[in-house]
Formats: sequence, C-alpha cells, structure tokens
Amino acid sequence: MKKDQFILSVLVSNIFSVLNRVSGLFARRGFNIDSLSVGETDDPKFSRMTIVATGDDYVKNQIVQQLRKLHDIQSVVLLDENSSVLREHVLIKLNYSNKKDIDAFVESFKANAVFSTKDTIIIEIVDDQSVVENFIENAKKFGILEMCRAGALALAK
Amino acid sequence: MKKDQFILSVLVSNIFSVLNRVSGLFARRGFNIDSLSVGETDDPKFSRMTIVATGDDYVKNQIVQQLRKLHDIQSVVLLDENSSVLREHVLIKLNYSNKKDIDAFVESFKANAVFSTKDTIIIEIVDDQSVVENFIENAKKFGILEMCRAGALALAK
Repeated sequence: MKKDQFILSVLVSNIFSVLNRVSGLFARRGFNIDSLSVGETDDPKFSRMTIVATGDDYVKNQIVQQLRKLHDIQSVVLLDENSSVLREHVLIKLNYSNKKDIDAFVESFKANAVFSTKDTIIIEIVDDQSVVENFIENAKKFGILEMCRAGALALAK
Repeated sequence: MKKDQFILSVLVSNIFSVLNRVSGLFARRGFNIDSLSVGETDDPKFSRMTIVATGDDYVKNQIVQQLRKLHDIQSVVLLDENSSVLREHVLIKLNYSNKKDIDAFVESFKANAVFSTKDTIIIEIVDDQSVVENFIENAKKFGILEMCRAGALALAK
C-alpha cells in the first residue's frame, strides 16, 4: 500500500443512507477516498463497504470515530496490509494490433484475456495492489483505450 | 444478469460530490443500487463509477437522464450483458476444517486460495455474475465466516 493508506471495512444496513452520509463526511472534512466498493454480504440485510483512504493517524482516527456515530452502520473495522488480504480487480481495453507482445504481457502477469476482436482486447487482472499498479503501468505502453478499476476488497486474515 | 438489472458506467471528475449526489438521487427516488464500485482511471483527473441497479425501462431512463444533469459527471453509458464484459470479484473466508472438500471446491471453480491457516481459508473468485452467484451458493454449505463482494466492473465490448 501507499504511504498513509488505510482500509476500512464497514458493515452497513442501508446502502443509500450510508453512502450519502459517508461521502458527505469525507467531502466536508476534505478527507480523500482512494477507492470504494459496496456489495451484498451473504446476509441480504447487510452490505459491506470497503473504503481505501489516505491520511495520517489523526485523520484515520477521526474517520473511524465519525463513521461509528453514523446511523445504519453496524461495524467499522480498520484493516492494514499485514493483518489482512487486500486484492484489486481491474479491466483494461487495449488496442490489439500488437497481438504478439500483448499476449506475452498477459501471460507474464498471469492476467486473463476476457474478450477480444481483431482490433481490441479486454484484459482482467486480480492481484495485490502493487502487482495491479505495475500491470497498469506496463499496459500504458500498448495504449489504454478504456480502464475500469474496482474498489479494493479486504478481509482480515 | 437478473431480470431488469442494468449497468451504468459513469465517468466522474470529483468522487465526493458525485457519490453524494448519486446516492441522494437514488435514495430520494427509491431506486435500488445492487452494487457500486469507484476507482481511478488511467487519467488521475477522472474516476469511473460502475453502478449495477434494478428497475424497468422507465426507471432506467429516468436514472440516466438525472445522472446526466449532475455536475462533475463527464459521461453516463448504459451497458447491457450482450454488449459488454461484466465481471465480479468476491473474497470469502471459510472454516477450513473440511480441507479436502474445500480444496476440491476451489479447484472446481478455478477459484484462488489467497491465504489460509489451519482453521480458516480466504478464497477469491473473479468471474461472470452467474458463476460468482453459484460459487457463493455452494460456499454456504462450508459455512461462510465472512464475505466481501466488490461492485461489478463492466467495459463495452
């Protein structure tokens, strides 16, 4: 992870109200969200929100305290890189004219060619943050046509 | 995809303000967000938000129109299953006492064992929505300890 980045795993009972208040909280305070992901849990009453944010210890503690005060939030867990598994998912569409080099690139990252035509290819990678960053950097030389990056997912080990 | 589900790929220039207004829009209108993911694009000035929502044609068109009116939104693209690649990412922590059956389960779904101790295992899958749903259903029989599901990602083919 980058310097001062941290991960919040937040169990919520109402996506709308929480999204609204979480984004409001971050905006008002000028805190920075790097990525955010919300999806169902195995219990349909709850969703889990994973937020990756950047800030020093003061900011981090403020955010956790403020989040815990919000309605419809069941729990807020602060995770770090050592105590948790942190994974990222990215889709990238590239110009596929340089077929041979792109196939080798996909292979070298154990990435996944999800769909291709003779002109374009959509590649997927899921890995640790540093590998995904490295993958994106390397993809740039082929010309990224479009890119879609999910919020990181994290679970405590 | 499930009946009446649709995908919005939204390019935004300011995560906070847009998150706030998008969640407000959905909440006020009573529209349902199934999943949401926000991450950087290759251009640091913009983020891409992928929203999976459920609603009939009227709701869908309303949402697209309303979103296009919001500030800081660069583009709103409506994607469907046929014209796009739609992929989901899930992390699941299971009780690992039944090692043999779980290893076979992971293998059968070409899933990825990311981390394990003698008591627990964290498994990751990235696939089409129907496969991921099926994976989660099957994981339940082993006892899901924790689950974290990312917002779906989509790119136009």
